[in-house]
Amino acid sequence: MEVIEPRLPKGMRDILPKQMVLRQRILGIVEQTFAEYGFEPLITPAAELTEILLGKYGADAEKLIFFVQHPGGKEELALRYDLSVPLSRVVAQYPDLPKPFRRYQIAPVWRAERPQRGRYREFWQCDADIVGSASMLADAEIVALIHAVLRRLGFEQFTTVINNRKLLTGIGQYSGVPEARLPQLYRAIDKMDKIGLDGVRKELRRGRLDERTVDRLCELLWPAGGEQATLDDLRSPLADYPQAMEGIAELEELLSYLPELGVESDFCRVDLAMVRGLDYYTGPIYETLVEKPKIGSITGGGRFDGLVGRFSTQGFPATGTTIGLERIIDVMEELKMFPAAETLVEVLVTVFEPSLLPESLKLLTELRSAGLRCELYYGTDPLGTQIRYALKKGIPLLAILGPDEVGAGLVAVRELASKSQTQVARADVAAALRELLDGQAA
Amino acid sequence: MEVIEPRLPKGMRDILPKQMVLRQRILGIVEQTFAEYGFEPLITPAAELTEILLGKYGADAEKLIFFVQHPGGKEELALRYDLSVPLSRVVAQYPDLPKPFRRYQIAPVWRAERPQRGRYREFWQCDADIVGSASMLADAEIVALIHAVLRRLGFEQFTTVINNRKLLTGIGQYSGVPEARLPQLYRAIDKMDKIGLDGVRKELRRGRLDERTVDRLCELLWPAGGEQATLDDLRSPLADYPQAMEGIAELEELLSYLPELGVESDFCRVDLAMVRGLDYYTGPIYETLVEKPKIGSITGGGRFDGLVGRFSTQGFPATGTTIGLERIIDVMEELKMFPAAETLVEVLVTVFEPSLLPESLKLLTELRSAGLRCELYYGTDPLGTQIRYALKKGIPLLAILGPDEVGAGLVAVRELASKSQTQVARADVAAALRELLDGQAA
Repeated sequence: MEVIEPRLPKGMRDILPKQMVLRQRILGIVEQTFAEYGFEPLITPAAELTEILLGKYGADAEKLIFFVQHPGGKEELALRYDLSVPLSRVVAQYPDLPKPFRRYQIAPVWRAERPQRGRYREFWQCDADIVGSASMLADAEIVALIHAVLRRLGFEQFTTVINNRKLLTGIGQYSGVPEARLPQLYRAIDKMDKIGLDGVRKELRRGRLDERTVDRLCELLWPAGGEQATLDDLRSPLADYPQAMEGIAELEELLSYLPELGVESDFCRVDLAMVRGLDYYTGPIYETLVEKPKIGSITGGGRFDGLVGRFSTQGFPATGTTIGLERIIDVMEELKMFPAAETLVEVLVTVFEPSLLPESLKLLTELRSAGLRCELYYGTDPLGTQIRYALKKGIPLLAILGPDEVGAGLVAVRELASKSQTQVARADVAAALRELLDGQAA
Repeated sequence: MEVIEPRLPKGMRDILPKQMVLRQRILGIVEQTFAEYGFEPLITPAAELTEILLGKYGADAEKLIFFVQHPGGKEELALRYDLSVPLSRVVAQYPDLPKPFRRYQIAPVWRAERPQRGRYREFWQCDADIVGSASMLADAEIVALIHAVLRRLGFEQFTTVINNRKLLTGIGQYSGVPEARLPQLYRAIDKMDKIGLDGVRKELRRGRLDERTVDRLCELLWPAGGEQATLDDLRSPLADYPQAMEGIAELEELLSYLPELGVESDFCRVDLAMVRGLDYYTGPIYETLVEKPKIGSITGGGRFDGLVGRFSTQGFPATGTTIGLERIIDVMEELKMFPAAETLVEVLVTVFEPSLLPESLKLLTELRSAGLRCELYYGTDPLGTQIRYALKKGIPLLAILGPDEVGAGLVAVRELASKSQTQVARADVAAALRELLDGQAA
């Protein structure tokens, strides 16, 4: 039979056991934090009806959707593009779900983007959302959740940048930007960081906004030329724009909850030039920039009060965030933020000779019952070979049963890193191994 | 904008948070057991190149494959149909993976079957395999793993039925069944349980096996009419059929390892009429029947020494099992084998009035830091309303902060099941809540 070349689809990848060690550890921390914050897991199918997905993400994004079919199938299916649209479908489909509905979902999504380093066509998203509450408490809890996750993962310095779409809309109204041009306004001011005030002005003019509008806008946002206006600066000029005032009030309420939720003030700031790309945001928006280690934006989210309403006449307010888990994992791997481990296996049980195999099997079974992660060496090669196997695989400990040990009711325990070996009474071996492991982790 | 009806593709489903409580608990036990048995996790992409999948499962199965495409895409992709073929691709693709390669994968697969109760077009498989060892120790460890998983999940009585494809082939040779007709032989004797010996005879004749062959076969397998032959019975008639003798030796070796691996003998038996459906098995095969509760077959597997060789000139022996996790979850839910919980949330922190909200937020944050899964009530409704919310959602405990409690540095702790309420010093509240939870779980 012809040998088929083993290869992956373009832009997709395998996550091998060695990479899974760190990944599972990170995921464990993330999931535990989600649970402590009252979020519960949800699974939705990888494929949705195309009518659920289309018309939500914009034309450019839709070009990246993967379609699914089976011969003779009558439905049009597509692989999910994100987790927010499936969430909105779920909330509309099961009206009895208790509200607020706090769910997290960690699952792959598919986008046929041009593959490049660190960007895949299948990648895992990690979303936490609260549906069914318009309270700024919900937004504040999302910000607090982000902070708890990042702190527990070991990130030292980061800032959640907060803004509000209502405020942005009000600023547009004040400056004279027609509603249809708001996306252009957003795109332009979002570049402030990169292209500076003159660049933003140019960009706005290119968006065919007249000079007077551009002036009013820039003088409001950057009154002294470079430094951004504060919320207090905005209050008086925007007094007659109810949307803007609502946005300011929401921002202040959100910020007021953060200290008691454990978010210190230097971990948060309002940035009027942060706009987030997606169309569907309606209120507070937030993203998190990690400064130490310096890796840029790793969360993004905000309030999207209209999305559930696409699937139900009874709409629900909603807010939430995506945490860039894949990027976090990449960074933590690169920076070795956790002690590296090559394998989850903790102990290799050796086999001295065929007649002693039953003893090794018994020991193996005992150690597993004691909760140790064990592998048996398959074979009766010399001990040196068995040690080299453990070293190659990264297994830290050996439990050795030779004729002397079996005769004396002992087990030899060998720590590979230190090459130290001691004999332990059979009854104490699980505890001795656990102690060595704890010592290594400390 | 038009409202889109929120619905799922045919045969697919959502797993809502309420169902996830039990599912996560079961998965936790399964994954921990896998880890203790030295298996490590692997993730492969949902979509594989079609050339990887086609020609592996048989014509009928292939009709059920879902194909994937994106406009302008040049590759032909399909959703994975099982986890064994992706595993075989992985082993061939990364020759440096340490052998034996012990991996587990718990992931959805897709099959466009006609939907029916309990059968879905997206369902989760749970596989554990050992690649790169021809030793019967590997097969014995798979059987031991199955037993550990089922025992820990609380199943009381089950039997792993074991057979061997080499022995079956040898029996075919002895009886005079041409190799091309072996699948017919397999199909016929597999029905012994259901249709009895006469039925099997009829079925074999229908498969155009001549009378002499059918006689030899049936006399060998069921010498006294109904009772099955033992391995000892077979040894002398099959002495000149090396494949058969190899099969018998493998079975005996496998069985010999089980006691020391913690598998008692009444949990295992050889059944010469058990054949497993898939073409690719080459040696020991096994499936597990659960008798208490009586739910039929929930694991299936065996040795498949040829599959990796489809993707590499360097083949590898391999053995493993699928555990029918979805079925196990369904059964455990139906039979209430675990105490039911409606939610993962353990504590609802109430809010008495707006001025006391900061106190509730502080308490919430403290309890979360202590590892408790907490939700804040959004609002200042009367306590009765807040209690009803907790009851509806199934949250077992309330932490109540009214003006009296705040003034005295106390928190009222209420257990909803018993309606008992006590006041606890603020510093002790996390411990008190944890104690109540532990008491409920016991």
